[in-house]
Amino acid sequence: MSKKDKDFRLTWQAEAPKHKTHKPYKGFKPEFDVKDPEAGTYRSIFKWGAQDFHKIPKEGLLKLIKERFGMTDEDFKKRLPNDGHEKVEYDIPLKLTAKQLSALEAIVGKDNIKTDDYTRLSVAYGKTMFDLLRLRNKIVENVPDAVLYPAETEQIEKIVEFCNKERIPVYVYGGGSSVTRGVECVKGGISLDLRKNFNKVVKFNKVNQTVTVQAGMMGPALEEYLNMLPLTDGTKYAYTCGHFPQSYKWSSVGGWVVTRGAGQNSTYFGKIENIVMHQKYATPIGVIETDSIPAKATGPDIGQIMMGAEGTFGVLTEVTLRVFRLMEDNQFRFGFMFRTWQDAQAFGREVMQCQAGFPSVFRLSDGEETEMMMYNYNLDEMKPVMALLKMKGYELGKMSLCLGFTDGEKGFCKNVLKNVKKLAKQYGGMSLTGVVTKEWEKGRFTDPYLRDTVQDFGIMIETLECAMNWDNMNHVWEYVRNYCKSRPNTIVCTHISHAYPQGANLYFIFIAKMTEMEEFKAYHSGLLQAIHDSGAAMSHHHGIGKMFAPWLRTSVLGESQHDIIKALRKHFDPNCIMNPGGTLGLD
Amino acid sequence: MSKKDKDFRLTWQAEAPKHKTHKPYKGFKPEFDVKDPEAGTYRSIFKWGAQDFHKIPKEGLLKLIKERFGMTDEDFKKRLPNDGHEKVEYDIPLKLTAKQLSALEAIVGKDNIKTDDYTRLSVAYGKTMFDLLRLRNKIVENVPDAVLYPAETEQIEKIVEFCNKERIPVYVYGGGSSVTRGVECVKGGISLDLRKNFNKVVKFNKVNQTVTVQAGMMGPALEEYLNMLPLTDGTKYAYTCGHFPQSYKWSSVGGWVVTRGAGQNSTYFGKIENIVMHQKYATPIGVIETDSIPAKATGPDIGQIMMGAEGTFGVLTEVTLRVFRLMEDNQFRFGFMFRTWQDAQAFGREVMQCQAGFPSVFRLSDGEETEMMMYNYNLDEMKPVMALLKMKGYELGKMSLCLGFTDGEKGFCKNVLKNVKKLAKQYGGMSLTGVVTKEWEKGRFTDPYLRDTVQDFGIMIETLECAMNWDNMNHVWEYVRNYCKSRPNTIVCTHISHAYPQGANLYFIFIAKMTEMEEFKAYHSGLLQAIHDSGAAMSHHHGIGKMFAPWLRTSVLGESQHDIIKALRKHFDPNCIMNPGGTLGLD
Repeated sequence: MSKKDKDFRLTWQAEAPKHKTHKPYKGFKPEFDVKDPEAGTYRSIFKWGAQDFHKIPKEGLLKLIKERFGMTDEDFKKRLPNDGHEKVEYDIPLKLTAKQLSALEAIVGKDNIKTDDYTRLSVAYGKTMFDLLRLRNKIVENVPDAVLYPAETEQIEKIVEFCNKERIPVYVYGGGSSVTRGVECVKGGISLDLRKNFNKVVKFNKVNQTVTVQAGMMGPALEEYLNMLPLTDGTKYAYTCGHFPQSYKWSSVGGWVVTRGAGQNSTYFGKIENIVMHQKYATPIGVIETDSIPAKATGPDIGQIMMGAEGTFGVLTEVTLRVFRLMEDNQFRFGFMFRTWQDAQAFGREVMQCQAGFPSVFRLSDGEETEMMMYNYNLDEMKPVMALLKMKGYELGKMSLCLGFTDGEKGFCKNVLKNVKKLAKQYGGMSLTGVVTKEWEKGRFTDPYLRDTVQDFGIMIETLECAMNWDNMNHVWEYVRNYCKSRPNTIVCTHISHAYPQGANLYFIFIAKMTEMEEFKAYHSGLLQAIHDSGAAMSHHHGIGKMFAPWLRTSVLGESQHDIIKALRKHFDPNCIMNPGGTLGLD
Repeated sequence: MSKKDKDFRLTWQAEAPKHKTHKPYKGFKPEFDVKDPEAGTYRSIFKWGAQDFHKIPKEGLLKLIKERFGMTDEDFKKRLPNDGHEKVEYDIPLKLTAKQLSALEAIVGKDNIKTDDYTRLSVAYGKTMFDLLRLRNKIVENVPDAVLYPAETEQIEKIVEFCNKERIPVYVYGGGSSVTRGVECVKGGISLDLRKNFNKVVKFNKVNQTVTVQAGMMGPALEEYLNMLPLTDGTKYAYTCGHFPQSYKWSSVGGWVVTRGAGQNSTYFGKIENIVMHQKYATPIGVIETDSIPAKATGPDIGQIMMGAEGTFGVLTEVTLRVFRLMEDNQFRFGFMFRTWQDAQAFGREVMQCQAGFPSVFRLSDGEETEMMMYNYNLDEMKPVMALLKMKGYELGKMSLCLGFTDGEKGFCKNVLKNVKKLAKQYGGMSLTGVVTKEWEKGRFTDPYLRDTVQDFGIMIETLECAMNWDNMNHVWEYVRNYCKSRPNTIVCTHISHAYPQGANLYFIFIAKMTEMEEFKAYHSGLLQAIHDSGAAMSHHHGIGKMFAPWLRTSVLGESQHDIIKALRKHFDPNCIMNPGGTLGLD
């Protein structure tokens, strides 16, 4: 390997070790369920990510949870019985006829169609807590009749054509990490599981710096391909797609596109709608394909009409993305502590408006989240820093953490860092060096694994996020937080993870002792209502799906804008076969 | 004035002196028509810009034109008779009923509706050569029945509602600089001339850095408002809208938005679709208003559906734009000469892909344009530089010029400049310092004035532009240039003026001795066909209008994408009253 080769630090390999190890518990350690779920079980479906990777909370975090929820060691001595280790079993007969099934089989081949119970359920749900609770409680509903594994774009086009003729609902399962009931097969029909066969690179264009992929390609496979191009294809540069959502390892390119997703590095690389160059869809009225020209003035932007439709206009088959040169050596890390969340917000706004270039990862946590991170990211062990902070009047629960790093050419990154540092100082930020960011990076893609481990003890972790202008941010934060806190003993952490000169998102994480589905549904729904009432947009990058859809027409967009989407749906899908059953409130 | 105040270099004041003065002609000087056209004349309508500002070609440029077209001083001794100094006179009766007219009058007030011949013609055409030729030849067609001057958004909403009920076509005249027959009143009806009353700032938001304006606000008025805010409103910063098309002084914010325009500084500030935050439209089915949140995942992007509709969905009434802090001291100028156009292209691509931040103005001219600029921008007087270039093997006609400057925070700009310089060297570019850029800046908003002066002698100047990926750029250039050159004695200059990591635009300027409308139409149409056949998008920022529309359905978008726009038109405007008569090929 030449020196040049060694310089590729492969982003897709930068992951945590398989089994998370950290300081052993000093006190009582609950018996967390770290058993790999067996094939065919409910747990194997709802469990986050790799079947053989488990993550348990650090002792400090568990301590905090106990304190906040008034729980004791006793409460952690016995796991709840609904752990999902039972085999999937239910009785929902197929509605598709034998003739229909054999027509579908003729398109994809015998090995690429399945109708067994487990397979049907395995693609029916996403990963919102509502899905997890249903699976833990063996509530099986909304399964497709058949699961297909297409391998070619033409197969998907034929499937959509056939299903339109036969009025068979068509759902798509990419990575399955939807938290909006986006993939749920409310009307039965078929689900196209893209993971198995529809996951390849179609072409790479070195001159234009673009890559075209099948929609089912998963994040790490794409990143590996791009990182390795100097070795596999002799390119001068290694590349990155720049899109790293928390679900990065368990989400597909197609899913990113149809929901308007955002990666954690989006402040530099842009949301997916800024990265997409070209899209190809199989719709009931035929193939829709845009070009890959970066800017034009030839009428409304068709690409932006298709993105965000969440499968209701057609199946996204191929997509071309911009790619970026990989320059990870220029990822300069930073971390600051501000006295208050308001100081942190003001600092964030200034960073975004000063025109010095944007950092890549740029996260600002409110007081409660900062405290939580202290417990979770080993900061509680940094006694000298904590003492210094205390001495300087930074108060736990109020002080707010900023972390992040740069991306881009070296001089660009240096200048961003220089300005971030200068502004942090101006707003009373104390530098913590890059150490906090490094801690955060260790868990950036694996934190969701914690959910399952603590849920076995009745602790629920769920997230919601929204977007707003800067001048409404503190109001949204207060308003939504007040709602969350109206439920006693609920932890609510908030952060900004995607910022713009004109505003940012707010990401709410709530942690509660909560086991009942009805309570979850009511609380979740109230939270969505609070987000809407505060004046924020209901989703910055999770999408709308079927779960948030009831608000889309009446509140988020209003009738006149929602009617535009309805008119488009009618145009593309007059028979309502595409992701039907409430997606975007369209039927 | 404090030091701080003095630091505002007002972009809107940075204009050429009223009467362009330059070195006197040494040889024969034609009698150019520098007479201010009288009120009521055809010339007062077709003349570019201010009635009392005239621009004549420099002696070197005229010499080049004579050489290329085989013309002699004799040809410049007599101006053509169709100079448009006659008063407008025609006989096209009104089709609106007295009742309809008085209903419209009731909405806008007696002083704000006109039906005289001159007023009707003055808003009927734009500024493409086809418009100019028609006016020079007194070809009056497609005039509206009445011209209205609304002052309030509600008035426009009432007008659209009334016209929809009565099936009266509605056209909008912003700045009138369309080169696509975008404003032309093909079906009669009414035209809303926004210049008089609908041109104000609605609100400025310092926290979000946004400004909301009425759609008829003109470029300089907006820029003056933003530049002056520290004096008028005590803001800490002066601001700029960052959008400076060549038509900047004679175009409206609304026109920029509905056509998807681009300013000359767009490589840094973005095209208008990247600058728009919020839009409000009066459509036949009611008011459509988007929010101003910078990013969201709540379905297809309604804002991007409305932009580019060119008035066929409704009348844009109010628009909110991002604004930027004004930091003109950081505009570092650069200029380079490359040996070939291909070297210049390769350099341009590298600048856009190196992730060091983008320059603001970034222009790369091909060999023929470079030669033309040498003649036009005093470079022919820079004998030592020319001698040096020659010595180093840079050949006139082949060598290609790059000029531009940076925008943004100081360190950001310095880094962009550093990288531009480094890469220029790598691609064989010889630095010309910032002097060429300064020359270019002098004429950046006034060059269109040249058109009228030389057209009096039968010399026609017209422009077309398109967009493509990098890997198709040289092909497009060769293909379109070959078409242009198939007509003997035609000058064709080409440049890149808007660049992206994945591609850029190409801007073609053709200059020819041509006076016949049919010849112009055939040549122009052939050029559009050549652009399409070469694989480029037919418009990067001029829009489609009625002139390019015949290609939109069959070639540019194809039927399936064009059908989407048709479906939207049907939704918004079922009676086809909005900018009807061929805009975007919709009726």
